[in-house]
Amino acid sequence: MEVYLDNSATTKPTPEVVAVINRIYSECYGNPSSLHRKGFEAEKVLSQARREIASAIGATPAEIFFTSGGTESNNLGIMGFLKKARHLNKYVVTTKTEHPSVLNVFKQLETEGFEVTYLNVDSAGLLDLNEVKSVLEKEPALLSVMMVNNETGALQPISEIGKLLCLFGKKTCFHVDAIQAFGKMPFQVNSLNIDLLSISSHKFHGPKGVGALFVKKGVRLEPLFYGGNQEAGLRSGTENLPAIVGMSAATSQTVKSLTEDITKMRLLKDRLQNEIERNISDIVINSPSAETCAPHILNVSFIGVKSEILLHALEQDGIYVSSGSACSSRKKSFSHVLEAMGRSETELDSAIRLSLNRFNELAEIDYVADRLQTKVASLRKTIMGDRKWKK
Amino acid sequence: MEVYLDNSATTKPTPEVVAVINRIYSECYGNPSSLHRKGFEAEKVLSQARREIASAIGATPAEIFFTSGGTESNNLGIMGFLKKARHLNKYVVTTKTEHPSVLNVFKQLETEGFEVTYLNVDSAGLLDLNEVKSVLEKEPALLSVMMVNNETGALQPISEIGKLLCLFGKKTCFHVDAIQAFGKMPFQVNSLNIDLLSISSHKFHGPKGVGALFVKKGVRLEPLFYGGNQEAGLRSGTENLPAIVGMSAATSQTVKSLTEDITKMRLLKDRLQNEIERNISDIVINSPSAETCAPHILNVSFIGVKSEILLHALEQDGIYVSSGSACSSRKKSFSHVLEAMGRSETELDSAIRLSLNRFNELAEIDYVADRLQTKVASLRKTIMGDRKWKK
Repeated sequence: MEVYLDNSATTKPTPEVVAVINRIYSECYGNPSSLHRKGFEAEKVLSQARREIASAIGATPAEIFFTSGGTESNNLGIMGFLKKARHLNKYVVTTKTEHPSVLNVFKQLETEGFEVTYLNVDSAGLLDLNEVKSVLEKEPALLSVMMVNNETGALQPISEIGKLLCLFGKKTCFHVDAIQAFGKMPFQVNSLNIDLLSISSHKFHGPKGVGALFVKKGVRLEPLFYGGNQEAGLRSGTENLPAIVGMSAATSQTVKSLTEDITKMRLLKDRLQNEIERNISDIVINSPSAETCAPHILNVSFIGVKSEILLHALEQDGIYVSSGSACSSRKKSFSHVLEAMGRSETELDSAIRLSLNRFNELAEIDYVADRLQTKVASLRKTIMGDRKWKK
Repeated sequence: MEVYLDNSATTKPTPEVVAVINRIYSECYGNPSSLHRKGFEAEKVLSQARREIASAIGATPAEIFFTSGGTESNNLGIMGFLKKARHLNKYVVTTKTEHPSVLNVFKQLETEGFEVTYLNVDSAGLLDLNEVKSVLEKEPALLSVMMVNNETGALQPISEIGKLLCLFGKKTCFHVDAIQAFGKMPFQVNSLNIDLLSISSHKFHGPKGVGALFVKKGVRLEPLFYGGNQEAGLRSGTENLPAIVGMSAATSQTVKSLTEDITKMRLLKDRLQNEIERNISDIVINSPSAETCAPHILNVSFIGVKSEILLHALEQDGIYVSSGSACSSRKKSFSHVLEAMGRSETELDSAIRLSLNRFNELAEIDYVADRLQTKVASLRKTIMGDRKWKK
């Protein structure tokens, strides 16, 4: 059996998405900027995709800007706002557990003279609203908080932060990285006081190389690229129409059965977690409990078994998981997310992320639980014989 | 008959390219950064694509960086170099006839305190090497010149400029926008003294949303995005593998029959030009003559007939052409390229770009020549009756 549980790294596009991409490549290959019929057809399809994606997150089409993916969306949102808002405070805030495509933007901002606060998280990876409140008093130009953590699934209190921002008179631009959240929980930007929000297509069974940035009406950004002024001047470059339409198809498929899919993923994840807790000793669940966790991510430390060794052992049985996030897993450093949560070195060294998708089935999950039990036991025996583990 | 002669705006991907994209989406959907087999398979395919593209332009694989397309490649090359080379002269040079994705970067640089020289072109759209020489004496930090003009096909003297740069001790970084050149003329970066070179996949029957930047070994750039440090830290973001492999397939197809394709396109273009010159009066050929022009672009002004009106008239007969470049044709302004070449308002107002691809056939070209003759005559009669045209 092959079970792909690395869906937070990337997902497999659905056959319907691939079919749509094929159709656009063969029937609608025009450049939306061309003035002839092939251009107008392309432009029409582009507008339809924009409406589809806007509607899925409670935005208007004019608030949706297509990018090359999540990293560009995060960079464009944060950098683009700060390049435009030069009159504001050179003070910005984010959290210690953001994705590198946010965290490294803030590190760059520090070199450009910005003062940055990196908010702490508790042992469950969650922000303290009092700490958020106290930094907002200092009127930062921008606050960036991810909706769902990509390594643990931790759900940050976006709605509460939005309310706090309102209390403070909306002096701070609110950017939300919703890349792991879209398709895993329902949300509507217009009810959350969000100014900028990033999504990435390949995280919800759409094509790679395309994403979107929601920019609330009235919020002004400086582009990262200069050129032909596509996307209302905010993102120059010939529109990646096949991928955009593929993302739109993935969006409509995702939205259609969102409630059932969330229930299903949560059930399967709970099952997996229960089986692990029941059958394997000396583990630490790094994901928060259900009400503050996304339905698709389970992060577990199997004390004494190095992440990479377990990852390769599982791979031999056709199971694909991740040690930390794919985006930084080629670097052999520990997870900054788990570090911020105060995990010990032994816990950091043995963390595995299992990330589900809406197509996973019970039989797959039971197979993974079974294989995990066998592999962990066997690896522990090989390494340590009959000695006891220290957490 | 349907004849698409807007190939400088975008091309239709070949069935082989689409098949490759499909195969990657179904068989190799992993994230190249993932540590498991699906990640390594993706990484392997990525490396192979990099080798293919490097080899096609005489570069090494480590000198190829994948981007989201031509606009990003141009921006990353120019902005990335200047952000890194802060110790150099704040003086940079380009030409008046660059694509907006270069020209608008230089306009931005002006707002950031850079002094910019925009080199003139002659009536054929070509640079004067003496003018180039005199600006190089002022040791600009960077010089950006396109290899083939996207509106007229004018071939700039890249090789001669490369030699001049050597004479001046290579103090200036040389960026070349080869987006319209790749697949339309053979060139090797290692023999041209080029430091940075941009290509875009969808201009040579590859997928949209992907391009590459050649960065000569030793040339250092600052990234435009910060994140997971893919592409050796220069271009963060999950690699768009299906598109990259699609571009690689398009590259190998393009390179395979390049010499024959150039001969064929040139023959067809000459035929089209000859038929136009023979059968239609009061025209101005805006493309330079054969030895200084790419084989696939023919720009003609049909005096008295507004570009857009002729474009739509031809469209009724299934012929797709462009008024100026697609990238800026939604703005109703005149072509900055033809303006720089000193064309009159009447000539600017009636310019049409016919851009071929290697799959065009003689019958298509003869059909277009015939339809052009009929449409131009009929439109002129409608507008002007029997009066004479003033150029």
